[in-house]
Amino acid sequence: MATQQLASWATSLKYSSLPETATTAASRSFYNWLGCALGGSRHKTTTRAFQALRPFFGPATSTVLGHESKAKADASHAALINGIASHVHDYDDTHLETIIHPTGPVASALLAQAEALDRDVGGEEFILALIVGIEAECKVGLAVWPKHYDIGWHITSTTGSIGAAVAVGKLMDLTSEQMAHAIGIAATQVTGLREMFGSDTKSFHVGRSAQNGLMAAVLASNGYTSSLQALEAKRGWANVVSVSNDLDAQIASLGKVWETEKNSFKPFPCGIVVHPIIDGCIQLHRELKAKDLSTARLKSAHARVHPLVLELTGKKTPKDGLQAKFSVYHGGAVGLVLGKAGPAEYEDRVVTSEEIITVRDKITATADETLGADEAEIVLEFEGGAELKKHVSHAVGSLEVPMTDTQLQEKFVDQVALVLGGNGAKQASSVVESLKGVASIRDLVARILGSP
Amino acid sequence: MATQQLASWATSLKYSSLPETATTAASRSFYNWLGCALGGSRHKTTTRAFQALRPFFGPATSTVLGHESKAKADASHAALINGIASHVHDYDDTHLETIIHPTGPVASALLAQAEALDRDVGGEEFILALIVGIEAECKVGLAVWPKHYDIGWHITSTTGSIGAAVAVGKLMDLTSEQMAHAIGIAATQVTGLREMFGSDTKSFHVGRSAQNGLMAAVLASNGYTSSLQALEAKRGWANVVSVSNDLDAQIASLGKVWETEKNSFKPFPCGIVVHPIIDGCIQLHRELKAKDLSTARLKSAHARVHPLVLELTGKKTPKDGLQAKFSVYHGGAVGLVLGKAGPAEYEDRVVTSEEIITVRDKITATADETLGADEAEIVLEFEGGAELKKHVSHAVGSLEVPMTDTQLQEKFVDQVALVLGGNGAKQASSVVESLKGVASIRDLVARILGSP
Repeated sequence: MATQQLASWATSLKYSSLPETATTAASRSFYNWLGCALGGSRHKTTTRAFQALRPFFGPATSTVLGHESKAKADASHAALINGIASHVHDYDDTHLETIIHPTGPVASALLAQAEALDRDVGGEEFILALIVGIEAECKVGLAVWPKHYDIGWHITSTTGSIGAAVAVGKLMDLTSEQMAHAIGIAATQVTGLREMFGSDTKSFHVGRSAQNGLMAAVLASNGYTSSLQALEAKRGWANVVSVSNDLDAQIASLGKVWETEKNSFKPFPCGIVVHPIIDGCIQLHRELKAKDLSTARLKSAHARVHPLVLELTGKKTPKDGLQAKFSVYHGGAVGLVLGKAGPAEYEDRVVTSEEIITVRDKITATADETLGADEAEIVLEFEGGAELKKHVSHAVGSLEVPMTDTQLQEKFVDQVALVLGGNGAKQASSVVESLKGVASIRDLVARILGSP
Repeated sequence: MATQQLASWATSLKYSSLPETATTAASRSFYNWLGCALGGSRHKTTTRAFQALRPFFGPATSTVLGHESKAKADASHAALINGIASHVHDYDDTHLETIIHPTGPVASALLAQAEALDRDVGGEEFILALIVGIEAECKVGLAVWPKHYDIGWHITSTTGSIGAAVAVGKLMDLTSEQMAHAIGIAATQVTGLREMFGSDTKSFHVGRSAQNGLMAAVLASNGYTSSLQALEAKRGWANVVSVSNDLDAQIASLGKVWETEKNSFKPFPCGIVVHPIIDGCIQLHRELKAKDLSTARLKSAHARVHPLVLELTGKKTPKDGLQAKFSVYHGGAVGLVLGKAGPAEYEDRVVTSEEIITVRDKITATADETLGADEAEIVLEFEGGAELKKHVSHAVGSLEVPMTDTQLQEKFVDQVALVLGGNGAKQASSVVESLKGVASIRDLVARILGSP
């Protein structure tokens, strides 16, 4: 019954039933997503996809964010390109219990389709659809976590197709039965192998899952059928993509526990498991300065980390910015040497600079199962015997130490300034902050991009 | 090394190295595919997808076969719709060792892209690309068969994305490294759950895998990267989608054993496992006539079948044509009552007719592990004590009893006449038979559809 229960819950939910904590979390999620999508819009991965697929673009209904001045495409291609852009810096949000990046697949599909409809979509309707999509995605993700991820699936996109279908289906006002079919059409498109991490295809997963879900909702709205037991059947999604699941329990918690509220935002554009080390190294950078110690005299740096850190980000010698996202050693090095780890510190020229490589190669790390995923410890030894130690109990960006609205704004403006300039970015920020009250998402996008 | 070996083999293969048995088998495969795609083009499943997605169509480079008079779309949408049409009657080809329907994903992508290129693609080049695609698809399918299918994956589409990528990549003259990336981008889009069998989404799998592969090749041609170990890595395709595989052995057999030559064609538009029963029942229909026995006096019909028959096609009371494809009971009933089992015998009105239902409900079947997959036995009992028995050692359409060229032609004309009329169908048939020698696939398609 999980598929039909999810469909029924999603189609009947009203904005007035949403707790304000959820709508605020959703607004923050969209705000963070938009900054990432604009910030990643001119990355070479995004540009490669845009140029390769431009000959296939259909009617220009939907904005391809920031790639070129006000470029448009059909909703499906806009969803793909915006989805790629939003994930390409690994700077997007994280549902920590599943390490799903929930907003990418859902918002990429939703924004594109909201622009393409022949009516205006208001802010509340948009937020409602965003929330049902994120809830669907995270609940099915929780149902198969962690076995599904262990097998080798990129859980963001494998669940993202389903979330995007539910969100777009909500926007298109599907019946409960159509919604169940949309869930099935999305579920059958299982996109995302972890083997692709470190290549252009990792962010393709996010864009493709947005397309998968969008197409599923569009097909279902025209009567296309799938299975009404797509998620729970013997050979349905959960059983095929995982060796165990608790789908019924997760679906039963819909509307009781809001996954949207558990969404967290990254202060650093790389895998979240590296964040405790970066946080610690940035703190150490400040202490080094205060003590007049230079990393040039560093003998060794040893880190103790959660086991997943080495499994996911154990790359010793990353060759470029993409690979560096999977290197706890690069993250630690830029933290220690530069005192920050923003998109600029993941550019190829920084990853290959001698100063960073020298420090990076002095860093060692061991897995420690007693540590939490947002916890780390690092010990520095210097020539002459000086030693510094830092323990991070909860990294910045964790649920315990969330990014503040001001920090989110700084992150947004930093990224968007690359495309719209400093003033444009600040203007865009204030426009997006008004999301809840806007009458038309189409107008919102035009105002963000600086239309009259 | 499997991914790079496959890429290297596919990019370096020349038409002159192909045995004529392979090029002839490929030509027959394309011929059969085209008939199925035209024959399925006006099925409601195809029409639903066409109408739902038409607002997304890009520049009209590629033919949407038969759906409307000379409709065109961008190559990706043409690949999707033609792929759906070619599979919707379950009448397409079968690689018996894997029950992959190989031509659907590959030819749907290839034809659409061949029309979209800004140069003419000749018949030999087209056949070469078709063969490398089918070989890629069937070799990776063999590598994970049968565990992959047992888990619940629709092996036609999960391997079809890879086959389509290799075929289109060959047509686009990718380098070996680009081809490896294309394989990876295709492999990460694992489309097709068996749970969808019996719904519109089963044939969507075939169309979507064609799109997946086409997009993978197009992205890779523009420098988009994936993994050079996409198939064989610890968390690569084969390990994630199956619990065991012999990828290395299968890849090593490329160019030594031609899977294309093992392709078989269906005389009946339904799951191939039902064919022995249908074949036997059609033979029994003729014997009943000769003996002046009527199915109106049938007391019972009991079949012994391969175990997969009941697992895949055990539907006792199908409600429409789609469900009937998964009912050995319906297949047996139309064979006995009508003496044939073409597309007309799978129309809804036949499935719900009282005459068919009455006979259908008298049929029982038991699984017998001693029988081959193309073998069956059926025993009829009549009021008054008459008994008839039929043993089918190898069903028509099996490798032992392949369809002849004449039978293939009849099948083609039967299907294509629905769209182009009887004369148009015969004209189309003679045009497609000239495939090997044509200078331009674009012209071939125009001539098939009756352009001047």
